[in-house]
Amino acid sequence: MKKLWQKDNKSTLDPVIEAFETKGDLLMDQKLIKYDVQGSLAHAKMLCKIGILSKSELAKLEKGLLEILSLNSQGKFLLKIGDEDMHTKIENFLTEKYGKAGQKIHTGRSRNDQVLTAIRLYSKEMMEKIKQELTGLIKSFENFSQKFGSVKMPGYTHMQKAMPSSIGLWAGSFIESLQDDLSLLEAAANLNDQSPLGSAAGYGTPLKLDREYTVKLLGFAKAQNNFLYCQNSKGKIEALILAALTQILLTVNKFGSDIMLFTTSEFNFFQVSDALTTGSSIMPQKKNPDVAELLRAKVHLVLGNYTALVSLSSNLPSGYNRDLQDMKKPLLESLEITLDSIKVTGILLNNLTPKREVMESALTEEIFAAQKAYKLVQKNMPFRKAYGEVK
Amino acid sequence: MKKLWQKDNKSTLDPVIEAFETKGDLLMDQKLIKYDVQGSLAHAKMLCKIGILSKSELAKLEKGLLEILSLNSQGKFLLKIGDEDMHTKIENFLTEKYGKAGQKIHTGRSRNDQVLTAIRLYSKEMMEKIKQELTGLIKSFENFSQKFGSVKMPGYTHMQKAMPSSIGLWAGSFIESLQDDLSLLEAAANLNDQSPLGSAAGYGTPLKLDREYTVKLLGFAKAQNNFLYCQNSKGKIEALILAALTQILLTVNKFGSDIMLFTTSEFNFFQVSDALTTGSSIMPQKKNPDVAELLRAKVHLVLGNYTALVSLSSNLPSGYNRDLQDMKKPLLESLEITLDSIKVTGILLNNLTPKREVMESALTEEIFAAQKAYKLVQKNMPFRKAYGEVK
Amino acid sequence: MKKLWQKDNKSTLDPVIEAFETKGDLLMDQKLIKYDVQGSLAHAKMLCKIGILSKSELAKLEKGLLEILSLNSQGKFLLKIGDEDMHTKIENFLTEKYGKAGQKIHTGRSRNDQVLTAIRLYSKEMMEKIKQELTGLIKSFENFSQKFGSVKMPGYTHMQKAMPSSIGLWAGSFIESLQDDLSLLEAAANLNDQSPLGSAAGYGTPLKLDREYTVKLLGFAKAQNNFLYCQNSKGKIEALILAALTQILLTVNKFGSDIMLFTTSEFNFFQVSDALTTGSSIMPQKKNPDVAELLRAKVHLVLGNYTALVSLSSNLPSGYNRDLQDMKKPLLESLEITLDSIKVTGILLNNLTPKREVMESALTEEIFAAQKAYKLVQKNMPFRKAYGEVK
Amino acid sequence: MKKLWQKDNKSTLDPVIEAFETKGDLLMDQKLIKYDVQGSLAHAKMLCKIGILSKSELAKLEKGLLEILSLNSQGKFLLKIGDEDMHTKIENFLTEKYGKAGQKIHTGRSRNDQVLTAIRLYSKEMMEKIKQELTGLIKSFENFSQKFGSVKMPGYTHMQKAMPSSIGLWAGSFIESLQDDLSLLEAAANLNDQSPLGSAAGYGTPLKLDREYTVKLLGFAKAQNNFLYCQNSKGKIEALILAALTQILLTVNKFGSDIMLFTTSEFNFFQVSDALTTGSSIMPQKKNPDVAELLRAKVHLVLGNYTALVSLSSNLPSGYNRDLQDMKKPLLESLEITLDSIKVTGILLNNLTPKREVMESALTEEIFAAQKAYKLVQKNMPFRKAYGEVK
Repeated sequence: MKKLWQKDNKSTLDPVIEAFETKGDLLMDQKLIKYDVQGSLAHAKMLCKIGILSKSELAKLEKGLLEILSLNSQGKFLLKIGDEDMHTKIENFLTEKYGKAGQKIHTGRSRNDQVLTAIRLYSKEMMEKIKQELTGLIKSFENFSQKFGSVKMPGYTHMQKAMPSSIGLWAGSFIESLQDDLSLLEAAANLNDQSPLGSAAGYGTPLKLDREYTVKLLGFAKAQNNFLYCQNSKGKIEALILAALTQILLTVNKFGSDIMLFTTSEFNFFQVSDALTTGSSIMPQKKNPDVAELLRAKVHLVLGNYTALVSLSSNLPSGYNRDLQDMKKPLLESLEITLDSIKVTGILLNNLTPKREVMESALTEEIFAAQKAYKLVQKNMPFRKAYGEVK
Repeated sequence: MKKLWQKDNKSTLDPVIEAFETKGDLLMDQKLIKYDVQGSLAHAKMLCKIGILSKSELAKLEKGLLEILSLNSQGKFLLKIGDEDMHTKIENFLTEKYGKAGQKIHTGRSRNDQVLTAIRLYSKEMMEKIKQELTGLIKSFENFSQKFGSVKMPGYTHMQKAMPSSIGLWAGSFIESLQDDLSLLEAAANLNDQSPLGSAAGYGTPLKLDREYTVKLLGFAKAQNNFLYCQNSKGKIEALILAALTQILLTVNKFGSDIMLFTTSEFNFFQVSDALTTGSSIMPQKKNPDVAELLRAKVHLVLGNYTALVSLSSNLPSGYNRDLQDMKKPLLESLEITLDSIKVTGILLNNLTPKREVMESALTEEIFAAQKAYKLVQKNMPFRKAYGEVK
Repeated sequence: MKKLWQKDNKSTLDPVIEAFETKGDLLMDQKLIKYDVQGSLAHAKMLCKIGILSKSELAKLEKGLLEILSLNSQGKFLLKIGDEDMHTKIENFLTEKYGKAGQKIHTGRSRNDQVLTAIRLYSKEMMEKIKQELTGLIKSFENFSQKFGSVKMPGYTHMQKAMPSSIGLWAGSFIESLQDDLSLLEAAANLNDQSPLGSAAGYGTPLKLDREYTVKLLGFAKAQNNFLYCQNSKGKIEALILAALTQILLTVNKFGSDIMLFTTSEFNFFQVSDALTTGSSIMPQKKNPDVAELLRAKVHLVLGNYTALVSLSSNLPSGYNRDLQDMKKPLLESLEITLDSIKVTGILLNNLTPKREVMESALTEEIFAAQKAYKLVQKNMPFRKAYGEVK
Repeated sequence: MKKLWQKDNKSTLDPVIEAFETKGDLLMDQKLIKYDVQGSLAHAKMLCKIGILSKSELAKLEKGLLEILSLNSQGKFLLKIGDEDMHTKIENFLTEKYGKAGQKIHTGRSRNDQVLTAIRLYSKEMMEKIKQELTGLIKSFENFSQKFGSVKMPGYTHMQKAMPSSIGLWAGSFIESLQDDLSLLEAAANLNDQSPLGSAAGYGTPLKLDREYTVKLLGFAKAQNNFLYCQNSKGKIEALILAALTQILLTVNKFGSDIMLFTTSEFNFFQVSDALTTGSSIMPQKKNPDVAELLRAKVHLVLGNYTALVSLSSNLPSGYNRDLQDMKKPLLESLEITLDSIKVTGILLNNLTPKREVMESALTEEIFAAQKAYKLVQKNMPFRKAYGEVK
């Protein structure tokens, strides 16, 4: 397919190079098409508003763009090597079908601001979903706590029995952790909620674009004001999103770690429903709660993606650098992983039954030592002396 | 020195083990003493308020704690191996000097919530300073932009000349980047601004502590509500702080990267004052702007520390785990690095003079190609056709 | 499909959980099938040798396994959710087609050692390919050096002109770097070249398996001796492989970084063939060597994957932990990225022409300052004095 | 103090900048002085051999350098801000005391190759010590295995009881892991064992230095041949060393993780000597094996340092970049951490007593299920059928 920057469609690009540059990226673009079309729809409306597109040209482009959305949702707008990227394929589709109107769609923008707009829209939508799931998960922990909160269990420090605790305290720790995570996610979502559209290649255009109009059409909170910062924020804001996801997955990891420990036959504090355990290919007796292991695993993947993004973004001068193309996959993957992990944490929680007797009989005598010392304190003995006494 | 948990002061701990466990940590505690004393002052006042300390006992403890602060500020309260940690040394100091009052200071708390309180207070203060420096740096960029903003320079994409830009656009990109950084830092500071004091070992105490009172005395915004979450948030909130610092240092890195490129003799866009360049031990002619290299370096160190913190915090069950002791150094180091880097960025900026003629003569003809295409667009030629025309 | 551990094929596993546990993993297994079949062929031969399979049973299994290989190479052995994993699908295929023989294939092994064997075989083959490409790339740099080695160019320190250099010195630095990389890759390949087959779930089996025989059939250098270590080395050896790939990609990154700098219009040291540059969608004049940017990007992705692997592998007790399933993707992806990057580096190098005159005229006077000092040294002036003199 | 590149000793460098550039670095240089002096001694001998220093000048320099070593070992050669770095302080010391001879010591070298030589010597010595400790630790595990190897214990998968295991198998897994670690460490040590001395700033000198002679004097295996590669390998070889240390610390982490789990009161498999446990400040009953927690923590710190080093080294053009100064601290710290951790692992191991009865009674019936299936296999039942039967 003819590239946007080519005079003719004889690709002169070395095929190994072309595959290296686009093979993996097209898989990401396939997921972003929907958002790229949204951006194009808004951009076209704005071009019409400022007089660059006629109403009939706009109508054609809207028709074409909706056709693309529809084809795409049927799996019929497939990107393949040679297409360069989704932007090229979309513009070529529009130009082939609607001629001059298609040739105008790129007025006043660059693929640089275009792809960034699509990425920010995608992240915005995914974070919205994650927020909803997080809220639901908090609710689930609250229900769990209402149901089982009064069950006593040992509290641990250094993985050793320390003091009396309860399922209420334990479940509550996840609720508060998730609330903190939610608040950080909102901070990340706010920083993401800025439209780069109209910054073109990072240096604007001589045209008087109405950026506020596209901001409104796309539902962004505001525009990124500085054109160059749009490009410089690429990878940086995405790294921050991954830091927010990492916080969520740290909470998930803590839950998974607890479940793995508390469902050993030695601790034996919880029952996991059969619908969530799997067997062994060699040991007939096994029922493994391996969903907890896979939940535990996820924070590490997103940490790796975060590391990649920060390292990728640094030591580079201002302006667009194509290195950042490789930010798409870690970002998309991390958002998907997090969304799935929250859902699955909820399912695991709903399939968890505390073994009340086991838990309560685990409150052996030594666990009350500090409380004994406090009794002496209440009789006015200095704490350190009471401590020595009990010891 | 006698440990808090020992009956007598014959240390039975293997000396190699003791050094391994405390050597590096004591260096961190030395920096945290001030905050630990603040926490103890507030805790003592609260113990008095709820009737555990008499007024005269409180007076003694306040006196003792202020003595420690004073000794410490003179470098005379030095922690050494055998002291275990700052908490032990402080309690022992108070007990030796003020007897029973000292033996009561630990009532209703554990070193677990105590150290976390000191860390959160330290981070709070450091982030406050960083916020002030950030605000100052934004101001410096604004001044720089007012002074030199109208100077034209090439804008780059793929490190190739792309479109006309200006110092105003370039400096503005850092302003907007720092504003975003500030907003994230505030989100991190808010999450840090929660008092863990009163959660004891992570499971509370039977005493009716007045946690709201210590919150107020220490200037925290609120208390962490769930006792267990206090310990589970250890490392997690600190990781988040490091993510916020990383954002700042990414902006600093971008600035350093630009300066290194733009001061090569090939680009030659800026003059750096002699007071900021160093020479070579072997090449007499050299004047290196190596402060920009060292600014560029810092984000990587904090990224490393972040990675350490997340990895350290994961795959561990709920409750205090001593692994997290090793979070102190990456945290303290990162806060110091960031504070210094912002200051130094401001100094570098204030010692930077654009070479107007070199910059403007770098605006060679090809850089206006897109603008030529836009002229044709304004005469109603579709953009893609105009693009082909100019090409 | 019936799981190996199920009595009947009514899956009781929650479908969201099943998707979470296997969706991404099946994509990796699809790439590993070939190696899993190799492992099964060797295992079956060994079972026959020790008398567990009859010759005719072995013949059936060999037939079935070759059928799978053939179907797979035609894209007709596709794993889908419900298949659990490649091992299950393969055993089920064999059992359905060859009855009792199929039911025997799993004797004396577990999916734990089976998947590890497939992974180690895959890594072994990929590292072999990478070694060949590395050797070829060293050759290409040698050719480049022979052709252009005598061209003079400035040598830089702190990105400032420092001393006279040459393309010979520059190209030679990559040769020596790649030789070091090759030597480390061999160390990693040696550690990978150990067969885990026969360790079963990590605790062996009561059968007298002939592990040396499968070692020989599969072409491993030796067996991992300790059963438990097989599982404990999962993720650990793979992390090490990624560290070796990172070294290679650091060399590639240095090359990409140099090319990006040296092809700016300000440096202008090299010409890159048109077949390797791409254009801009908005700026008609642009020819970007963006393949160098994408080469530069890769080390960060593999660093991220390494971080994920180490973090994933730590804080876990001995024995199989399913968390490590998530090691497959970072590993496979990193091996593919590295192989491609070396190839593409070679192509870029072969499409690079030094601009001799530009380079040599960049050797401006100041670059000879150290050499002037050395002339004075040769006349017996102490170096530091000569340095002062020239300065 | 007068810098090597200054005409006079009026420092013109901004003091905040100077502190930023050297404060932390001088602490590292303090540890490297000994190695820098070694490098200087060898360099001076070589300069004498090739006729640049007279024998009497060499004698003076040797005297002066030994004086520095002696002062340093008494803590009397302290670097402070204003000294710039150890190289400057040493050259200034020699020049002040021995005049012209001191002014000649820098002939034919740059601080670039000088510091790299010191770093490589330091790493070489530390890795030698680590190898010895590793060998000792392997021996300790062998002794442990001889003593307790026959004790039966459960083997775990998914943290669930899986099959019968033994202390012999468990201890053996660490032996084999450490042997692999040793082999990788040797590969890293070999790559480090190359002398950069004589490469000067990365572009050699016009003098005919005898590099083989300094190689021999310093005990390196060979010289790094390409001058530019010496600088380009800075950070890269050090990253590789950290990858090798990470492998060791992953083994240590596995041991620490097992000990933490196996000493919970729920598992209760091992007794740790009192000399290695610490108490709680609030809970009188506690005895925590927290040395295992701190061992578990270390791999994360070195992973963070590795991440920092790779990220720091990438996206930079060829030649010396001062960014890499910040590699010193992560490197030195990681080597020290690893050396200490191996020692402490050995001590912990030697203070560990298996509770034979607890372990063996943990071999409950279900753990023999696979073995029952194998009994049926030995009576010629296909494995999968036997598995179903037992289930």
